[in-house]
Amino acid sequence: MAGKSKGNAVIGQSGGPTAVINQSLVGVVQALRKAKLVSGVLGAANGVRGIIEERFVDLARLKPSLLERLAVTPAAALGSTRDRPDEEYRRKILDVFAKHDVRYFFYIGGNDSADTARIVNDMAAADGRELCVVHIPKTIDNDLRVTDHCPGYGSAGRFVAAAFMGDDRDVVSLPGIKINVVMGRHAGWLTAASALGRLDETCGPHLVYVPEIPFSLSRFLEDVAEAYSKHGRCQVAVAEGVADEAGKPIVVDLAEKLDAHVERDSHGNVQLSGTGALGDFLAQYVKKALGGKKKLRVRADTFGYLQRSFPGFASPVDAAEARACGHKAVEYAAKGAQDGSVAIKRLKGKCYRAGYFRAELKDVAKETKEMPRDMLNKAGNGVTKKFIDYAMPLIGKLPVIGLIK
Amino acid sequence: MAGKSKGNAVIGQSGGPTAVINQSLVGVVQALRKAKLVSGVLGAANGVRGIIEERFVDLARLKPSLLERLAVTPAAALGSTRDRPDEEYRRKILDVFAKHDVRYFFYIGGNDSADTARIVNDMAAADGRELCVVHIPKTIDNDLRVTDHCPGYGSAGRFVAAAFMGDDRDVVSLPGIKINVVMGRHAGWLTAASALGRLDETCGPHLVYVPEIPFSLSRFLEDVAEAYSKHGRCQVAVAEGVADEAGKPIVVDLAEKLDAHVERDSHGNVQLSGTGALGDFLAQYVKKALGGKKKLRVRADTFGYLQRSFPGFASPVDAAEARACGHKAVEYAAKGAQDGSVAIKRLKGKCYRAGYFRAELKDVAKETKEMPRDMLNKAGNGVTKKFIDYAMPLIGKLPVIGLIK
Repeated sequence: MAGKSKGNAVIGQSGGPTAVINQSLVGVVQALRKAKLVSGVLGAANGVRGIIEERFVDLARLKPSLLERLAVTPAAALGSTRDRPDEEYRRKILDVFAKHDVRYFFYIGGNDSADTARIVNDMAAADGRELCVVHIPKTIDNDLRVTDHCPGYGSAGRFVAAAFMGDDRDVVSLPGIKINVVMGRHAGWLTAASALGRLDETCGPHLVYVPEIPFSLSRFLEDVAEAYSKHGRCQVAVAEGVADEAGKPIVVDLAEKLDAHVERDSHGNVQLSGTGALGDFLAQYVKKALGGKKKLRVRADTFGYLQRSFPGFASPVDAAEARACGHKAVEYAAKGAQDGSVAIKRLKGKCYRAGYFRAELKDVAKETKEMPRDMLNKAGNGVTKKFIDYAMPLIGKLPVIGLIK
Repeated sequence: MAGKSKGNAVIGQSGGPTAVINQSLVGVVQALRKAKLVSGVLGAANGVRGIIEERFVDLARLKPSLLERLAVTPAAALGSTRDRPDEEYRRKILDVFAKHDVRYFFYIGGNDSADTARIVNDMAAADGRELCVVHIPKTIDNDLRVTDHCPGYGSAGRFVAAAFMGDDRDVVSLPGIKINVVMGRHAGWLTAASALGRLDETCGPHLVYVPEIPFSLSRFLEDVAEAYSKHGRCQVAVAEGVADEAGKPIVVDLAEKLDAHVERDSHGNVQLSGTGALGDFLAQYVKKALGGKKKLRVRADTFGYLQRSFPGFASPVDAAEARACGHKAVEYAAKGAQDGSVAIKRLKGKCYRAGYFRAELKDVAKETKEMPRDMLNKAGNGVTKKFIDYAMPLIGKLPVIGLIK
């Protein structure tokens, strides 16, 4: 590289990964190459953790063919982190950036990552350092503000919708009550996606429970009994984070009722992912309450990490948008070093098309976005057409199935 | 239909469904149409249960376009059953067959279905009735005798292999110990398929436990600790049916150790599928034993019914073979009404090609086929090249992924 160094860029990935988070990574690398904005492109191993530990990968050396393979690989190719930097940690980040002449920081993550990006950005500005910070959204939870939807959601939604389609056929084959637990602690977007593959009113899921609506066990039992008697089977989608009026997770309630044990982390939070407890408890509870002396087949599946990591099944729309978000991030950085977060809007027209704009970091940071009430039915146990119209274009074409009527 | 009736054919589907069981159904319907063997083609709703209850679907009326959609639809389009007919039940089957002039019975199922087919066949012969019974193999467990492999296995194996590939990338992103429970009560074929997507020695699954090898909790802990210290993470595949030397399911052992509860069915058998208990117990056990005061991330997923019902992800090889098995069944029936079970062999040559032959019902019925010892490594915690060479052609092309090294 002749002449004065243009400084370096650091890219990091953070939080729970998605099936297309590497599309955004590759988008940034591609666009940086094209824009010739920087001298070096460093990938931070495990997000901010890799920055303070100075564990960097030279991304400039990666061949285009490997980049394309990485783009279709689920989960964070650079490694991720759950760290939430405190004051000292953030100071260290800035010191490492100064040491490595880092002038651009691209951080791919959720609302916590946007918040980290915002604070690092403000600190750099206060110090008078030259640093441009751009946040690139990703989350299967689809719960970021400002943006119409989040890269990662479409692919997870596609997996969930397809899983419910196939599983419902399985339940038709061997009828009973089937409860499927879907990821989502506070927002029900992903659980709602379970309904996107319904071919008609007879198809499951017959009931959908999201965290936005307080969950009542007695009401749940009534709903299940009604659907079972109507359809001869009942397929249910339940968000892992469903909680009662007081905000107490249902898994805790059920554990008490069934005299069972739930796992908690070091902060006392109930562990929701990576365990089948909620599904198992709900199945036991339904069997006890509705089974009586009859042979009632009640089963539960917890879809778990496959929802965000299953390969070869990403939504093409989602993949393309995640890549484009990477390109846009570099565009904003190149255009007068504008900090911000890449956001998506729907362009007007008959067919779905996405446009991109720059949002302020502060507007995306910390707070999250739940499902609006009008995307959920009155009874609070299903979705409305408004949700279907919103989500359908994001997940791409679903597998074709046929029914004998 | 002019002239004397040629009699009718009944097709049924039985047992746990697969992603390609409807390919065989459609294969039979297509071949019966082409061969003009019978006057009517009746689909028995829910297998033998639908026969004795005379619940039949007229399959001759289904349009070719619907047949093709059904073929790619997971789970039994006609409905399935877990019924194991006794003497009286079987007598009823023959009576209904006589009433509806049924001269051909095609039964798509596992070893229990082959046994039912065998007995019904023998009874009809003893009575001097004209009845040709052909069994068509299906099972994700791949545990039928005589045939090289079973339709349904390749697609379930493809799902499991891909799931492990993506999940391993997820574990690289957020390192820890990840335990994935795979279907399989007695045979480890499907759990072994977890290893088919490994790109190199660093990739998971790092450990594979099948029911064929007695499971030792202490040995398991040692294995996990060793793999974790070597790779900085550990991804484990465990068959739901792993049991100790005495044949006691490990889930029972763990429940005692953790002072927890396991579900049992009315026969006292521990429920293995449709519950996350084994995975959750193993994760708790590992965390207790290895976590100490360190923050050790231990998670479990139970892949559940998605393994056999996920749509749009079938192995093309498996789908084609399942269809061909349906065609062959009609060929055997047309060729002098030969009873039997359709079996697959590998044809000699450099590339994988399948051939088909007629096996005797008695050779396929009841007994099952476990994994041979030489497909499992010496330590009993992984697979050998012999297994990879055996299974790889059956699952079709896996998704492409890339690794940064």
